Amino acid sequence: MRTMKAAVFLRPGKIALEEKPIPTAGPGEALIRITTTTICGTDVHILKGEFAVEAGRTIGHEPVGVIEELGAGVTGYSVGQRVIVGAITPCGQCHPCLDGHQAQCGGKAAGGWRFGNTIDGSQAEYLLVPHAMSNLEIIPDGLSDEEVLMCPDIMSTGFSGAENGGIRIGDTVVIFAQGPIGLCATAGAKLKGASLIIVVDSAATRLDMAKRLGADIAIDYTKTDPLTEIMRLTNGRGVDVAIEALGTQQTFESCLRALKPGGTLSSLGVYSGKLSMPLDAFAAGLGDHKIITTLCPGGKERMRRLMNVVASGRVDLKPMVTHRFKLEQIEQAYELFANQRDGVLKIAITP
Amino acid sequence: MRTMKAAVFLRPGKIALEEKPIPTAGPGEALIRITTTTICGTDVHILKGEFAVEAGRTIGHEPVGVIEELGAGVTGYSVGQRVIVGAITPCGQCHPCLDGHQAQCGGKAAGGWRFGNTIDGSQAEYLLVPHAMSNLEIIPDGLSDEEVLMCPDIMSTGFSGAENGGIRIGDTVVIFAQGPIGLCATAGAKLKGASLIIVVDSAATRLDMAKRLGADIAIDYTKTDPLTEIMRLTNGRGVDVAIEALGTQQTFESCLRALKPGGTLSSLGVYSGKLSMPLDAFAAGLGDHKIITTLCPGGKERMRRLMNVVASGRVDLKPMVTHRFKLEQIEQAYELFANQRDGVLKIAITP
Amino acid sequence: MRTMKAAVFLRPGKIALEEKPIPTAGPGEALIRITTTTICGTDVHILKGEFAVEAGRTIGHEPVGVIEELGAGVTGYSVGQRVIVGAITPCGQCHPCLDGHQAQCGGKAAGGWRFGNTIDGSQAEYLLVPHAMSNLEIIPDGLSDEEVLMCPDIMSTGFSGAENGGIRIGDTVVIFAQGPIGLCATAGAKLKGASLIIVVDSAATRLDMAKRLGADIAIDYTKTDPLTEIMRLTNGRGVDVAIEALGTQQTFESCLRALKPGGTLSSLGVYSGKLSMPLDAFAAGLGDHKIITTLCPGGKERMRRLMNVVASGRVDLKPMVTHRFKLEQIEQAYELFANQRDGVLKIAITP
Amino acid sequence: MRTMKAAVFLRPGKIALEEKPIPTAGPGEALIRITTTTICGTDVHILKGEFAVEAGRTIGHEPVGVIEELGAGVTGYSVGQRVIVGAITPCGQCHPCLDGHQAQCGGKAAGGWRFGNTIDGSQAEYLLVPHAMSNLEIIPDGLSDEEVLMCPDIMSTGFSGAENGGIRIGDTVVIFAQGPIGLCATAGAKLKGASLIIVVDSAATRLDMAKRLGADIAIDYTKTDPLTEIMRLTNGRGVDVAIEALGTQQTFESCLRALKPGGTLSSLGVYSGKLSMPLDAFAAGLGDHKIITTLCPGGKERMRRLMNVVASGRVDLKPMVTHRFKLEQIEQAYELFANQRDGVLKIAITP
Repeated sequence: MRTMKAAVFLRPGKIALEEKPIPTAGPGEALIRITTTTICGTDVHILKGEFAVEAGRTIGHEPVGVIEELGAGVTGYSVGQRVIVGAITPCGQCHPCLDGHQAQCGGKAAGGWRFGNTIDGSQAEYLLVPHAMSNLEIIPDGLSDEEVLMCPDIMSTGFSGAENGGIRIGDTVVIFAQGPIGLCATAGAKLKGASLIIVVDSAATRLDMAKRLGADIAIDYTKTDPLTEIMRLTNGRGVDVAIEALGTQQTFESCLRALKPGGTLSSLGVYSGKLSMPLDAFAAGLGDHKIITTLCPGGKERMRRLMNVVASGRVDLKPMVTHRFKLEQIEQAYELFANQRDGVLKIAITP
Repeated sequence: MRTMKAAVFLRPGKIALEEKPIPTAGPGEALIRITTTTICGTDVHILKGEFAVEAGRTIGHEPVGVIEELGAGVTGYSVGQRVIVGAITPCGQCHPCLDGHQAQCGGKAAGGWRFGNTIDGSQAEYLLVPHAMSNLEIIPDGLSDEEVLMCPDIMSTGFSGAENGGIRIGDTVVIFAQGPIGLCATAGAKLKGASLIIVVDSAATRLDMAKRLGADIAIDYTKTDPLTEIMRLTNGRGVDVAIEALGTQQTFESCLRALKPGGTLSSLGVYSGKLSMPLDAFAAGLGDHKIITTLCPGGKERMRRLMNVVASGRVDLKPMVTHRFKLEQIEQAYELFANQRDGVLKIAITP
Repeated sequence: MRTMKAAVFLRPGKIALEEKPIPTAGPGEALIRITTTTICGTDVHILKGEFAVEAGRTIGHEPVGVIEELGAGVTGYSVGQRVIVGAITPCGQCHPCLDGHQAQCGGKAAGGWRFGNTIDGSQAEYLLVPHAMSNLEIIPDGLSDEEVLMCPDIMSTGFSGAENGGIRIGDTVVIFAQGPIGLCATAGAKLKGASLIIVVDSAATRLDMAKRLGADIAIDYTKTDPLTEIMRLTNGRGVDVAIEALGTQQTFESCLRALKPGGTLSSLGVYSGKLSMPLDAFAAGLGDHKIITTLCPGGKERMRRLMNVVASGRVDLKPMVTHRFKLEQIEQAYELFANQRDGVLKIAITP
Repeated sequence: MRTMKAAVFLRPGKIALEEKPIPTAGPGEALIRITTTTICGTDVHILKGEFAVEAGRTIGHEPVGVIEELGAGVTGYSVGQRVIVGAITPCGQCHPCLDGHQAQCGGKAAGGWRFGNTIDGSQAEYLLVPHAMSNLEIIPDGLSDEEVLMCPDIMSTGFSGAENGGIRIGDTVVIFAQGPIGLCATAGAKLKGASLIIVVDSAATRLDMAKRLGADIAIDYTKTDPLTEIMRLTNGRGVDVAIEALGTQQTFESCLRALKPGGTLSSLGVYSGKLSMPLDAFAAGLGDHKIITTLCPGGKERMRRLMNVVASGRVDLKPMVTHRFKLEQIEQAYELFANQRDGVLKIAITP
């Protein structure tokens, strides 16, 4: 039996590189050989035990690779093609998928998120892709691995914050937190036509990157009160759309406080602990507010569109890859990433 | 100076009938002589001091009447016409109104709600209507006062819960609480094509009325656990849309727990105290949930549509008028209504 | 090799019953034994040579049956289950399907319409179902074949005319032509909350059926000018939504003339010959008109919802089955149906 | 009586400068002194007698100016403020306006278009603005007349082609014709996130300007067949959205032929003569096509948003002003503009 290296969750606090059998593609599945992958903030939640996965699970959900084997019934592809696969892998054929709720595939909350959660993930030499017909998307010629590495999750999630917030041309938008997801939400807000984009974080490198990606105003909340500043910038009107990109009480609440009556809070964060609704900012339920949560949209059509955006040069996310490690060094990579050392945004991992 | 009787908020616990001057219609305004009005749950909040209005304010926001006087610039109407006016009176001409946020007129939260809140209201012999061109709607021949009495608030609010919940043909919907607003949400869910409508309350008379208005399943939560029953009825799938019609932690939370992943919580209640988000039911923010709050849609176009619905016989809300009082007896009416005695749903008040 | 009877298109003017081999379910496919099917207006277009299909093709796209055989990879079903399948059979996994354009599966116009068009259809003893995982929907207990016979096409198409027309509570709607599709559009308009539904046809039986299904006003265009009457009924305002359910210049044009500025023409008909846009009614392109065409929505989620509507009793389409024939008599059935004899609406065909 | 100069339509072929009385602001109205205005393609239709207005009407609907006088009831503004007013001047208070159909104000087709059509227009020294509360928008400090001159019509109309086409991030879009409206549609498509923007025209200067404003591919249809090229660029898939910006059979039809099944034709042109629907490209009505027409959105909220876009530097439309004339020279300006001499795009006219 051939084996491969894989980054495996062992117990809270411990992800380690192990040898595992290379899987075989069953009906409807594909095996891809990973050429580049990366670590996500969610993986850190898993590492810390804040998001539970079973011991022995290979982690990671952001794959770039090459088709190694196609299972029965997988047609229209050939071995050797370069592909990406979204972090979320909808079947396309269940009731929720057919109803447009692909991230909730199967009708279980977040059911479309399988990689590194309910099945083995991409931080390994090989990855078994379920529902391959819905999920394998061929990389257009001329795009490098690193150029498309943000598509499976970061870009898809961040953009969806702007899309599902319903941003319109001429809107004022604030994005709270400028980690990789928040940065992509900023880029997405620009792509959707917002004419004033305000971002809030405390890390200078992130605020700088935000400005490169489309932010007009970058607020360091350790120095300036964001809400006072937002109200000043909008003449007391509030923003049309507020995007939450962290998952804390403070950012959620600040979003609600920054909104105009009738505004939309587009929430991307993964919340833990407690979350309460500030009733004053919520206008006791009379403010015509919308709160929209979105899990990363997946599926090959989404990947096709996002790679089109990359290919067109509309956004350039390459600078977000700040570090590069070999798969063998992944424990080091986690150490760096989990502690946000050295201005890290995203780490390209290559087997 | 001519005077009139008006029900006036004096202090928490005290609404009393007083004599007040009859107002005069300024530019853009109209004066209507009230022929029928009613008491709303929100008025009870005001009575109890849970929702602050200034002392001396005439209460009430559900007017049916006759045009008595038209101010300068109000054209297309004539004195003596029977009209209704929505509880919410948008100007139609400010930035938020022109952007479709008419209930948030002026850009202040709930800014379109003026009657019995920021200006004198309808529990009086006469009512001054601001922005008359946007708000006076002539009652079609053949409709009685009581037939259109629900349009200004109860029906508009209740229906909006179904509309903004995005109910589609074939949806399963639950409505928590079956007071007048909840009952109209039930009727609205039926009108929008829901094929399974579940309602939850504890009052038998309200559950019975709900069945008349379109509920398929009426759950008395004191006898049956609603969530267990909802999951049984939907084969564990959850509902597509959950409508909150009370404004409490329990009903809000139950809505979220009843929802399918990807479902919509349509919130109508006025919340007080605290409101927290149950993170498990909220799927930590990964469930593609939508939470939509709606304040009663107003304006004459809305009134026209709602009276069309009444005229067509699509719904019959007349049975919701369970009691009738003269304006002189309004203190008694408040006493009955605030304590929900005698199966009261709505009380028609006539000067 | 086992054989079966099948109604086969031979040449324009000739559909005949022939013996064909019973197919076998390949990977992802299912074989169902037809228990009831029916003839559609589109089949008559095929018979007349107005819509081209290849000689030898089994006709029909409205199947009710029993699972006979499941191909490899088809899970969650078992042989013997009663099922329906939509006329349109999306794969769920191609780019257009994942983007919500399931009727345009594969990216070819009307690509999701396979049965009796690009593959063999349902007017036979057995039917091979492609993409079975996306398309087989189990019939709820207690519903008869005839009760669900309208779901695969007539009800799905007719309702979509109301749905995609964006009908709102309180709208005025006109439906031109009250064949089976138009009748279901009428029922759909009622389900969506229209408060005034006007229908136009010339056949008294169809106008009567329309009134049973929700029409408020039925206009026989041979006796009354529909446009004059519509403008009278709407005080010159025009309708909010006009549904075209035939596919002719006259009905298309009348829809446009009946619309208010800003209104929506929801088109269901299959057009042949020529179609021109009346520029006066089209306001030279300045009327904020929407023209929306819809091909029958398919897939198992759609079938589930439609059967829910039937099960709830919200509409009763059983009276639309006016005639019953055995499969052996299908040539007679075509003769009756194509010539609209004897008040025929839909014919149940049983093998 | 004070008089002013005004460009007046006399008869087909003749617009002349005349002296007219300066109007006075009645209730709800405002008088503005024009500082800059411009000529629109629609004005040329009027000049040629292709669009009928009454003799003696002052032409023009694109005003930039200064408040000179405020009528009774117009509050929140002061004399001397610099303002723009949209080409379309909704009242905000009629049924269609309150329902969101502001361009169809009053319920007559294109009823919101008053300036230079049903009331006197902006090619004059002074302009009377109806419904001033809905329509006057103050110009932000720092923006010049020419910077905001495109907002009242060209930019509002062009952007609406992109907005109402429903362009999403990653879409492929084609715009047929690159006059001023088409150029703004191109800029709008970029703002909405299209990742491949194809434009078609024959004038090199317009194609060059299109590339400055966001076009990726500019096709000169006299040299290259646009449909062949579009299908090549999209791998036979067709475009997601096609924008018609001229108003001819050829451009309308090309849009439909360029579309993918399920695509949207967003129509901005003013059609004259005949318009027929190519049934093959229309898939006989089975292609899930949408055809959306849009008249220039107006009102002060729209103007606010568009000026925000200008102020943010997201688009730079200043280069579209290719010529400058004094009001006294307006007949010359018409001569140049109507014959598209000298690479003219827009002419700034100053009294």
